[in-house]
Amino acid sequence: MLSRYLPILDWGRRYDGETLSSDLMAAVIVTIMLIPQSLAYALLAGLPPVVGLYASILPLVAYAVFGTSRTLAVGPVAVVSLMTASAAGAVAAQGSPEYLTAAITLAALSGVMLAVLGFLRLGFLANLLSHPVISGFITASGLLIATSQFKHILGIKGGGDNWPEMLGNLATGLGDTNPHTLVIGLAATAFLFWVRKGLKPMLVRFGMKPRGADIAAKAGPVVAVAVTILAVITLGLADKGVKLVGAVPQGLPPFALPSLDPDLVAQLWVPALLISVIGFVESVSVAQTLAAKRRQRIAPDQELIGLGAANIASAFSGGYPVTGGFARSVVNFDAGAQTPAAGAYTAVGIALASLFLTPLLFNLPVATLAATIIVAVLSLVDLKTPKQLWTYSKGDLAAHAATIGVTLIWGVETGVIAGVLVGLLLYLWKASRPHAAIVGRVPETQHFRNVERHKVLTVPHVLSIRIDENLSYLNARWLEEYVLERVAERPQLRHVILMCSAVNAIDASALESLEAINHRLGDGGIRLHLSEVKGPVMDRLERSHLLTDLTGRVFLSQDKAFSELATDDGSEPPLQTADWARGMI
Amino acid sequence: MLSRYLPILDWGRRYDGETLSSDLMAAVIVTIMLIPQSLAYALLAGLPPVVGLYASILPLVAYAVFGTSRTLAVGPVAVVSLMTASAAGAVAAQGSPEYLTAAITLAALSGVMLAVLGFLRLGFLANLLSHPVISGFITASGLLIATSQFKHILGIKGGGDNWPEMLGNLATGLGDTNPHTLVIGLAATAFLFWVRKGLKPMLVRFGMKPRGADIAAKAGPVVAVAVTILAVITLGLADKGVKLVGAVPQGLPPFALPSLDPDLVAQLWVPALLISVIGFVESVSVAQTLAAKRRQRIAPDQELIGLGAANIASAFSGGYPVTGGFARSVVNFDAGAQTPAAGAYTAVGIALASLFLTPLLFNLPVATLAATIIVAVLSLVDLKTPKQLWTYSKGDLAAHAATIGVTLIWGVETGVIAGVLVGLLLYLWKASRPHAAIVGRVPETQHFRNVERHKVLTVPHVLSIRIDENLSYLNARWLEEYVLERVAERPQLRHVILMCSAVNAIDASALESLEAINHRLGDGGIRLHLSEVKGPVMDRLERSHLLTDLTGRVFLSQDKAFSELATDDGSEPPLQTADWARGMI
Repeated sequence: MLSRYLPILDWGRRYDGETLSSDLMAAVIVTIMLIPQSLAYALLAGLPPVVGLYASILPLVAYAVFGTSRTLAVGPVAVVSLMTASAAGAVAAQGSPEYLTAAITLAALSGVMLAVLGFLRLGFLANLLSHPVISGFITASGLLIATSQFKHILGIKGGGDNWPEMLGNLATGLGDTNPHTLVIGLAATAFLFWVRKGLKPMLVRFGMKPRGADIAAKAGPVVAVAVTILAVITLGLADKGVKLVGAVPQGLPPFALPSLDPDLVAQLWVPALLISVIGFVESVSVAQTLAAKRRQRIAPDQELIGLGAANIASAFSGGYPVTGGFARSVVNFDAGAQTPAAGAYTAVGIALASLFLTPLLFNLPVATLAATIIVAVLSLVDLKTPKQLWTYSKGDLAAHAATIGVTLIWGVETGVIAGVLVGLLLYLWKASRPHAAIVGRVPETQHFRNVERHKVLTVPHVLSIRIDENLSYLNARWLEEYVLERVAERPQLRHVILMCSAVNAIDASALESLEAINHRLGDGGIRLHLSEVKGPVMDRLERSHLLTDLTGRVFLSQDKAFSELATDDGSEPPLQTADWARGMI
Repeated sequence: MLSRYLPILDWGRRYDGETLSSDLMAAVIVTIMLIPQSLAYALLAGLPPVVGLYASILPLVAYAVFGTSRTLAVGPVAVVSLMTASAAGAVAAQGSPEYLTAAITLAALSGVMLAVLGFLRLGFLANLLSHPVISGFITASGLLIATSQFKHILGIKGGGDNWPEMLGNLATGLGDTNPHTLVIGLAATAFLFWVRKGLKPMLVRFGMKPRGADIAAKAGPVVAVAVTILAVITLGLADKGVKLVGAVPQGLPPFALPSLDPDLVAQLWVPALLISVIGFVESVSVAQTLAAKRRQRIAPDQELIGLGAANIASAFSGGYPVTGGFARSVVNFDAGAQTPAAGAYTAVGIALASLFLTPLLFNLPVATLAATIIVAVLSLVDLKTPKQLWTYSKGDLAAHAATIGVTLIWGVETGVIAGVLVGLLLYLWKASRPHAAIVGRVPETQHFRNVERHKVLTVPHVLSIRIDENLSYLNARWLEEYVLERVAERPQLRHVILMCSAVNAIDASALESLEAINHRLGDGGIRLHLSEVKGPVMDRLERSHLLTDLTGRVFLSQDKAFSELATDDGSEPPLQTADWARGMI
């Protein structure tokens, strides 16, 4: 029981020297990758770069204690940083102490929400985000993030939460472009692109193993950071208007307190919830992918608690919302991490960096960090999904496109909400008008098929309808309309058979609709029969009035129902409420 | 085409003398019933009684032109009046001109919303209200309405939108009870109860036909109105503190204009939407029930337009939101109405009443109208539904109980919204963890059944899973977890078969999950197979990557799949990405 909520008790007991050395190796590599990323994502979130380091220390330790993935690497990630910027920017100006407080409060709210959802086992709510919506949201976020960094490459002012604002501000400021900044920014971007695309093949050609080459390529940003710092110092670029990171406080994360101001909480709870859900979905899919590769399992509800603990830890150490990141988790996995302890060792690495390396960052150009972000997020832009959706499902494509459009035009929060609503609306719309078919007998067999697709036998006084969907309140009204319309077209009708072979459930609303259909058909002298009702559905129907009131019978097979009713020559006494036969079950 | 939007062109063409006399007869009876009801419901809505008459004239004509039900009687109804009182009371004080403007604006907004929903064919959105939620809402509304009228029976001040407020106000004011008012109120209530329960059997015993006795009993309120007016005049009760209706303006409805004030519209649009949906659901279920009795059909999307027109007409003639009422429609039907023209004739009757009868209403005690309301709405309180839900479906019972509880404690608007959300949440929760079973072969047959319920054959290297639900984004994550957990428990596994006989659809998210399962199983050296995939589902899968990437095959029958794979002795070459076989289809 205790080890369900504290997975560390489980893997910690079997920790040995071999695991330790694997974990340490992975931690060193992830630390090198994480330092420039943490600084860059804090910049993206509109926060001082050091906040990115703070968010990469205690949260990793908290996740190591409470998380269930062996290889997930937690910390600041691009999309959540963008969402933080959008939410905090709505309540305070970037650079103000209130802005930092808002970011810390977002982490605290998000942490509490994640933990509560985990304890209540409500992880299934994340299902409301469909794949097409998530991928649309990530694509649009990637585009927004890249666009948001252009101002740093150009060395101008800018800002905005969405494309219209961002592009407007960029167009206005274009005249103020700083040529030195632009050269650094473009050079760093080009270099990082080359590292991503060209370095690995080159290293392999020089005899390096592919996996090693992959990991070496992840160190590209560190090289870009070091080279541009040197360039600034040697060429004296600080005097030429190149914006630098400047003084970064040296030392361990401070103890911080989130704000409990009810007004602030009221403004931030919706964005905090969205950040929680998006962060959870991103993190869980990474964790599941990696766990499956080693035939391990993660526990999604416990993951909520793990991420919740990480965010609460982030809030109390001056950080901002964190989650499991894709790129760094893959590096962690490939570098051989065996347990969450690797995350804790990474935390030590980052702590050492914030103790000793921060003075070196004074001369780091902001444009370098912007280049890091741009190159990292362009891989988020996914052009394959829309093509696949076009051929597979137009409805899903609509949800995907709507999410991209709304996110780009109105920003991330509206985008997520619109995506959930469009997905839900399409789902409900489909569930509210399910597939059904009028069926007839395939000659000389016991099979029944759609009369519109096959040559089948029917008789004018019997109508057989196959319902290809569970019956629920969403389609109960449709069912009434569908059956009564088909009946209204057929004046000779005396029997209606509902073939229930694909009906896995009938809820109370659908039951009432079946009763209404039964009574309405009865008023018109038509009997209602059921066939091929599944066991669990039948168990439930036996606890209702439907079977007692049914004007017709319940047949085990459609074949039997059709055979018996087709031979009814009308000599059967006409239907009277008084003598409705109890159905044969 | 034109007659789709103007059903009057259809039935109007075949109108003859016989239909005219049936319609006129029904109109006279409905008019007599509608006069006291209209006054009473206006009182319930917190409006001057004459507004109830106004809402029963032009709206009926508009519905006669645009509506599709032959027998629906439109006008003010109890639940919508309560919702109007709640919404208008939130923006203005009862009795103020702003309150009346708010009510008129609600009618206009609701009319426009209904018409737009009709033109966009969005009637299916009303499906979001399940039967248990509607019945819970109606029960709670009945209790709230009855409670709201106690103050008139006692002759004290009161008010409030929910039970805590109402009961608090009643308790405070109890000492001011006016004994004369109380006697009139209790006598009228007792009389109306007796009319409802005891009059019909008595009339039948005196030789009247049941249907005639039924209709005669509906005239009870008119008698109560007449008798109490006479009592007030003869006993001089006006001087003894009995609250009277007072001066009612004589004449036809005035031309009124709804307010276009954006602030007011912003405050009223949500309640207007809820009024529209509740009114539509109530009206459509009555209309469908009655239409089915004569094998007629109604067109729900055109009904939205008809009710929309009725509400717009109400707004422009000084009325408030209206919809089709249950009791009066049944009377209209039983009295022999053949076409919507009966509604137009009723409108003429009410117009004559507001021209000539209004002076007679000066001495009508408000307590009489309150008694009319109380007796009418207690039939809304439905005690059978919770019992039935208890035996049939606990989840539906939860939605029912939540709706009643929230409506009583927080009022009608919160109640409807909570009901929709609880219903949706339960539905999504169920859809997100569907039924699935591990199946094995029933010995010496081709049938496969749940291993937990039947003695069946399985082999350790083949796992057959039957999914009893459509695969969608709501359960895609569940599917991954379910399959991978079952696999993790079985180290000897080499083949997984997903039996898809109950899967009617696979959306893009579920497709991605199947691809993920395929890859993850492949990483562990296990092949994924599908069996019994339905035709339309297969058509769609063929447009995806899944079939090309599938490590296993697609089998027409589960029998064939199991037979072939069970005999695989492991001599088959181990799975390699390079030589994944294309599935046989």
